Amino acid sequence: MEGELKQVIIIRSDIDMGKGKTVAQGAHASLMSYLETVKSNKGIAASWLESGEKKIVLKIENGEKMQRLAEAFKYKGIPCALVSDAGLTQLPRGTFTALGIGPWKGEDIDLLTGALKLL
Amino acid sequence: MEGELKQVIIIRSDIDMGKGKTVAQGAHASLMSYLETVKSNKGIAASWLESGEKKIVLKIENGEKMQRLAEAFKYKGIPCALVSDAGLTQLPRGTFTALGIGPWKGEDIDLLTGALKLL
Repeated sequence: MEGELKQVIIIRSDIDMGKGKTVAQGAHASLMSYLETVKSNKGIAASWLESGEKKIVLKIENGEKMQRLAEAFKYKGIPCALVSDAGLTQLPRGTFTALGIGPWKGEDIDLLTGALKLL
Repeated sequence: MEGELKQVIIIRSDIDMGKGKTVAQGAHASLMSYLETVKSNKGIAASWLESGEKKIVLKIENGEKMQRLAEAFKYKGIPCALVSDAGLTQLPRGTFTALGIGPWKGEDIDLLTGALKLL
């Protein structure tokens, strides 16, 4: 039993992104992180797609915390993707906006994201 | 010259989805539609990833219009993915929530979405 698979999308709550931009950055994090999972474990990626692609959207207080969280996931070997803005519209170039994690085993993700609230 | 590639994500504006749910449904539409493009034209999918994954987020008035638009894209052979809610939380089961289109040639998408506004 490998437990429930899920993808977690984390959005920064301290920067002012419109709704459309938030959706675009979240979708970017989701797709990039999915492609990372395909690279590291094709079986998990396929099982997650077949089981209905559970996605959970959380928020985090600032970019430094987001970056540290991404490093913690990389250290544990869990696929993730940190998105920074291209700076063409609303934000300074390079601003971290969203972090995608997995799809991966939910219990492994929860160990690091348990303290975060739903967006 | 194949012109600029982009993906369009369309969100319904007449149903009450929280911000997190909107991000999740938009990410779902984005990933499903990307996988459709991979099936029908791997070259376009790869070029779009390499060129920075341009994504535009639009809104549409209701589910019937969203469904008709999805049918129009299918008729034209443009990859797309219509997302309906699993009905576990905020919405009745089967409610259309989001439509992903492409990545595909921007000018071909614009012919059908030109009248829609940014979310």
